[in-house]
Amino acid sequence: MSGEIIRTGRAVLHVTDFEKAKDFYVESLGFIETESTETEMYLRGLEEHNHHSLLLKKKKEAAIEAISYKVYTDSDLDALHEQCLVEGLEPIWIEKGAQQAIGRTLRVQDVSGLPVEYYAEMDGVERLLQRYDLYKGARVQRIDHFNCMVRDVEKAYAFYTEKLGFACSEYTATEEERVWAAWLHRKPSVHDVAFMNGKGPRLHHVGFWLSDPLALIHACDVLAAKGYSPSIERGPGRHGLSNAFFLYVRDPDGHRIELYNGDYLTSDPDFKPIRWGINDPMRGTFWGHEAPDSWFNEASIVLDVKTQKPVEVNTPVLKQGKPQFVI
Amino acid sequence: MSGEIIRTGRAVLHVTDFEKAKDFYVESLGFIETESTETEMYLRGLEEHNHHSLLLKKKKEAAIEAISYKVYTDSDLDALHEQCLVEGLEPIWIEKGAQQAIGRTLRVQDVSGLPVEYYAEMDGVERLLQRYDLYKGARVQRIDHFNCMVRDVEKAYAFYTEKLGFACSEYTATEEERVWAAWLHRKPSVHDVAFMNGKGPRLHHVGFWLSDPLALIHACDVLAAKGYSPSIERGPGRHGLSNAFFLYVRDPDGHRIELYNGDYLTSDPDFKPIRWGINDPMRGTFWGHEAPDSWFNEASIVLDVKTQKPVEVNTPVLKQGKPQFVI
Amino acid sequence: MSGEIIRTGRAVLHVTDFEKAKDFYVESLGFIETESTETEMYLRGLEEHNHHSLLLKKKKEAAIEAISYKVYTDSDLDALHEQCLVEGLEPIWIEKGAQQAIGRTLRVQDVSGLPVEYYAEMDGVERLLQRYDLYKGARVQRIDHFNCMVRDVEKAYAFYTEKLGFACSEYTATEEERVWAAWLHRKPSVHDVAFMNGKGPRLHHVGFWLSDPLALIHACDVLAAKGYSPSIERGPGRHGLSNAFFLYVRDPDGHRIELYNGDYLTSDPDFKPIRWGINDPMRGTFWGHEAPDSWFNEASIVLDVKTQKPVEVNTPVLKQGKPQFVI
Amino acid sequence: MSGEIIRTGRAVLHVTDFEKAKDFYVESLGFIETESTETEMYLRGLEEHNHHSLLLKKKKEAAIEAISYKVYTDSDLDALHEQCLVEGLEPIWIEKGAQQAIGRTLRVQDVSGLPVEYYAEMDGVERLLQRYDLYKGARVQRIDHFNCMVRDVEKAYAFYTEKLGFACSEYTATEEERVWAAWLHRKPSVHDVAFMNGKGPRLHHVGFWLSDPLALIHACDVLAAKGYSPSIERGPGRHGLSNAFFLYVRDPDGHRIELYNGDYLTSDPDFKPIRWGINDPMRGTFWGHEAPDSWFNEASIVLDVKTQKPVEVNTPVLKQGKPQFVI
Repeated sequence: MSGEIIRTGRAVLHVTDFEKAKDFYVESLGFIETESTETEMYLRGLEEHNHHSLLLKKKKEAAIEAISYKVYTDSDLDALHEQCLVEGLEPIWIEKGAQQAIGRTLRVQDVSGLPVEYYAEMDGVERLLQRYDLYKGARVQRIDHFNCMVRDVEKAYAFYTEKLGFACSEYTATEEERVWAAWLHRKPSVHDVAFMNGKGPRLHHVGFWLSDPLALIHACDVLAAKGYSPSIERGPGRHGLSNAFFLYVRDPDGHRIELYNGDYLTSDPDFKPIRWGINDPMRGTFWGHEAPDSWFNEASIVLDVKTQKPVEVNTPVLKQGKPQFVI
Repeated sequence: MSGEIIRTGRAVLHVTDFEKAKDFYVESLGFIETESTETEMYLRGLEEHNHHSLLLKKKKEAAIEAISYKVYTDSDLDALHEQCLVEGLEPIWIEKGAQQAIGRTLRVQDVSGLPVEYYAEMDGVERLLQRYDLYKGARVQRIDHFNCMVRDVEKAYAFYTEKLGFACSEYTATEEERVWAAWLHRKPSVHDVAFMNGKGPRLHHVGFWLSDPLALIHACDVLAAKGYSPSIERGPGRHGLSNAFFLYVRDPDGHRIELYNGDYLTSDPDFKPIRWGINDPMRGTFWGHEAPDSWFNEASIVLDVKTQKPVEVNTPVLKQGKPQFVI
Repeated sequence: MSGEIIRTGRAVLHVTDFEKAKDFYVESLGFIETESTETEMYLRGLEEHNHHSLLLKKKKEAAIEAISYKVYTDSDLDALHEQCLVEGLEPIWIEKGAQQAIGRTLRVQDVSGLPVEYYAEMDGVERLLQRYDLYKGARVQRIDHFNCMVRDVEKAYAFYTEKLGFACSEYTATEEERVWAAWLHRKPSVHDVAFMNGKGPRLHHVGFWLSDPLALIHACDVLAAKGYSPSIERGPGRHGLSNAFFLYVRDPDGHRIELYNGDYLTSDPDFKPIRWGINDPMRGTFWGHEAPDSWFNEASIVLDVKTQKPVEVNTPVLKQGKPQFVI
Repeated sequence: MSGEIIRTGRAVLHVTDFEKAKDFYVESLGFIETESTETEMYLRGLEEHNHHSLLLKKKKEAAIEAISYKVYTDSDLDALHEQCLVEGLEPIWIEKGAQQAIGRTLRVQDVSGLPVEYYAEMDGVERLLQRYDLYKGARVQRIDHFNCMVRDVEKAYAFYTEKLGFACSEYTATEEERVWAAWLHRKPSVHDVAFMNGKGPRLHHVGFWLSDPLALIHACDVLAAKGYSPSIERGPGRHGLSNAFFLYVRDPDGHRIELYNGDYLTSDPDFKPIRWGINDPMRGTFWGHEAPDSWFNEASIVLDVKTQKPVEVNTPVLKQGKPQFVI
């Protein structure tokens, strides 16, 4: 296989109000603001040595412009470009210099219609991991993963594992043993991307890694103190699937962010993917709490990489849109 | 004032299955089992130097036999006995020797109909605070408080503050400035007892103190691992009122236990009670989460101190049985 | 007994550089700065509802002006004044208005020569406990205790327990069963004041309470990030005596501050003081670490309440100035 | 490059007393005991899905038999065998079946004289990550790294990075810019192996990953409660180098174990190795604490893979055996 992906790299989000966004992401969640212009805000976590992992663009409509993966070398981009063409996808190049702080990128509507971007190069910045005096809010350490709602999880699963070299750590199966959701990784964590059955293509959330569970509790306290309690959608809780300690919050435009801590190493080829029945009450939250309807129904619209128009959303292949269980 | 109460002392609970109770309280929550017979189980927290703070009795019906306060001296019991008579209450004595490990106790149906017990003396036992090798589950440290549903909170409030020397740390007011709930203390914490408007008299929960927030998270994980996820009723979360980090669990008989950590010192006479509007969404859970209906509707039946029969429950004085808010 | 003391109230410290002091106490340890002038800085913890618990005065020489206890009522001050006279001590009054934000105070060189102050009244301020967005550094919650080096611990012990109503929670005994150190409390925690055998009278440290162990770890990280690693003198560790999780830091003038968390409730008259042999290696640090010599030898000079001159220091009654043990 | 190493795999330690070893590793540190015979004890961490990561063999003398790396496939073993021969090393095969629960292994005295073992296959076992009811002590999650004292760090560095595909995350340089120590990784963490200048070849410690900082504090408390305070050699503290929160303990035979939490992701080829000057006081412990002499001087003897006799130890190339700094 060519076109080696390293890891989840950055998300490019359209938001409508920079003042609100800054208060939420920087002041409350504790992202580092690398730099900002009137229309672009570049954010990163405390351990990140690259320029940004979250790029906010000020636009009239909230949407997802791109979810990006970092690859090893520039030639991996060429290999991925070739692969896209072979697979009948229609990639485009954005040349170096057209975007701030990042080398040339390859963008393509992937097999599920998601706006995926690949890049090999991003400017280095000072890593602030040991600037503990700058820690605040959730003390976000680094980007971890994307979670996407797609019409056909099995199709996405096949493409990412067979063509892009992802491995599966855990998955959710329906009673008919159809794959309802799958957690796939390149870096040896539970996931770089998860696909979940639902109206799609949409981005469900971007996950960021925290250093410890108490940082997540403190994040709740800070969010509430700053008036964001209505933005706390789900958690804190322990996921059965992934074992992560989690919190889901909604940014002022409704984009969902997961604060995430506590999964495990998935480096081994003999690690057997863990199966969860869709109606296992401990799957979503190990402690048995049900997720709210909004968590299953709401997600961010994604854009067409060529037209920058919203991509049409379609009903999923599997009918069950949400686990059902009685505690 | 005579009849000096020190603090919340012990709860006497009737449970129906000792095997289940032991698995829940000892194996899962981490209570220390001081001793047990076929019909009585004596439990305590890790820092407790007295014989027990939770007495379980095996009975056919789950109920609350007594909620007990420790007083300074035996003569305080006499003073309380006298006071009961003056107030028209009908106290009874249980002489020393009639109950295991405790001196003579005074029992009385209090002004709300709750089965209250006072005692001055309890056997000492080895304190296990530094036996960290015995820590498990929630690592319960000590008993902290009772929370009671009563018909008339203002009546209970008046009696406990004016006759029994309790001070108010925080309270909940209706829009008409009636006291809907009140947190009252003798020891300088947020409460030894709280009264909440509702069908009563019933015991809503017994609160136990944990050493740190992560012990509470670990308690959730252990409970879930042992199959008790359906027993996790509410939380973990941060209370607005009291600032405590909390978890509510239901024992196998439905008695509610609060694991509790993080309130503050209330020693000062110039501390002004904190008022919360009943419909403030941050009152119950600072992070904005709504409590489930069961938390407002369900509570444990209490017994008559003389007949050991259930005390009749009546509708509350204030109509609003539950806060209402839209997040 | 009259002259009821509630708790440790405030410390009045002389420091030589306000810029350094502010960076240390406010920016690094996270004290709230209630107000400041050119010569006085008033600091408090996050849960404190009184104006300050730490008053820094800018002076040419670092010293301790007063260690203060809060009493219930103004008439308790009169009773304490009378008691001082009876005991042959020479108290002075500082009238209300002479000091900022505090009522009249009674100051006296106590039985050990320590500059003790009593007060009943201090201005109220907004409690910031739930302003989690303001939390930083050690997230100091409240003042907890004083630790004093005195010539004659048994004399101080007798006076504080017999005349001032303190109770002993734990103590250190020499091989000859002399009291080498004692932890005494009014509020039901391990201590409001401890006396330790050594050259005295001197103030060894002021202890502040933290909400949880990770706040203490974070304090170390923040202190180090801001260049204060040489100020971290001892810890983090677990005290055997008191069971507290602790850190000792030295402020820019050498005054010692303890960050402290995790002791236990000492409300009960039947709680038996815990004895530790002076050479028990788990007494100081439960994990067996030895304290550095500076911790045993260095302490802050105290002032005469009348002359504001340094009080002469004398050698202790017991020869052993420091525990000796071989791990 | 062929012979792809995944990660640190297991350590094979000789210990002299199984009763003591079990009490230390299983009862106190919380390792899971997969299985044991009279002469072999197989231990693993809570998240590990392979049979063991720590193999203790009962022998007359304490020593290190092997430090093992897991490779992707059996053919990687052949490639490594070929490479060893090319480099003039003398590898030996241990065929499948000769060792319990593991496939064939390749053993070789590496370029520093360390007894290295490679394997591709190990039996799978039930992963106990979500059996929170089994968590105790340090709650060890998984093996993380080896730290080795070698005569010539630069030689080891060159071999591991040029021949074995390791990347450097951080390193320590002398004033003459010689590499005094280096942290090298295959999995994207700070290290799978570190080499430190000193009398060698010896194994300095085996590092195990913990889920959170409080598990490490609890480990100290449990070790002390069980009488192991003399076994706590260094920490808890924050490493400057690696940013990890650490504790070093010595097992009953003196083998050093590091409990480790909180490093960062090192997946990126553009991550620039971080340089630390050897005398930087924040290098070892970010908080400025000096390590005890034993930490620099004592390490475990390693065995010859062919003769099973101790490998001779020689003085290091660089004279400075220990950082020197004045706080």
